[in-house]
Amino acid sequence: MMITPIGVIHTPYTALEKVPIQPCYSSGVGEIELFKEYEEGLRDLEGFSHIVILYLFHKSEGYSLTVKPFLDSDEHGLFATRHSNRPNPIGMSVVRLVERKGRVLQVQGVDVLDGTPLIDIKPYVPSFDHRDVVRIGWLEGKV
Amino acid sequence: MMITPIGVIHTPYTALEKVPIQPCYSSGVGEIELFKEYEEGLRDLEGFSHIVILYLFHKSEGYSLTVKPFLDSDEHGLFATRHSNRPNPIGMSVVRLVERKGRVLQVQGVDVLDGTPLIDIKPYVPSFDHRDVVRIGWLEGKV
Repeated sequence: MMITPIGVIHTPYTALEKVPIQPCYSSGVGEIELFKEYEEGLRDLEGFSHIVILYLFHKSEGYSLTVKPFLDSDEHGLFATRHSNRPNPIGMSVVRLVERKGRVLQVQGVDVLDGTPLIDIKPYVPSFDHRDVVRIGWLEGKV
Repeated sequence: MMITPIGVIHTPYTALEKVPIQPCYSSGVGEIELFKEYEEGLRDLEGFSHIVILYLFHKSEGYSLTVKPFLDSDEHGLFATRHSNRPNPIGMSVVRLVERKGRVLQVQGVDVLDGTPLIDIKPYVPSFDHRDVVRIGWLEGKV
């Protein structure tokens, strides 16, 4: 299936090595600019304090099925990590929606490269998206 | 960008009208079957009690920028809903990983149609993915 960008994410991070590894480590403010033809789809989004964004890891090139993640010195299966080089290089982040101005969303906690193509926005809803987690595998004690 | 399925999600839901609207309303057990060539990427995933799955809404046909969601009688902007008809029809769910048997994951809380194409698996990590939410817009009092 073809994926088409619906907008672009503007952040302070212009180089990969400066991007925070996850939004929880990022206090950076960014802007999500939705392309004009989709603006009507944002109606009522400002009622939500947090949103889920899906985007393309557009600098991703190929992938390995095992990787040594930033937070560990051991190799792990790719799907047990959030590494950006994936068969389908799609990233997901939960960010705080600070303000909506027309088709531009000011968000806090962005952890992506400046110019990242946006592919979807969904409201973040705790009863849908939050789980009381028992185990976080190799990340235990690291995050 | 082209998206290619990496597996298939088997669930008890063979008709759209029987699919729970969100995984939190679903106690159904399903199986995620990863295609053989990706199996190595699952290493260490069993350490995580919950995973995020991305999949294609493969029965989705076109979209409207405003929709009347199942949970409300008013129209809302598409991006303020989790409706399956979207410019990029990609769904996201957090499910409990019950057991891994090779390239088959037994999961609980699946809310998708049987045969749904899987496009990514990520570990669910509260410090990355959980936020203390203040506002959930039009869904307030409904979920």
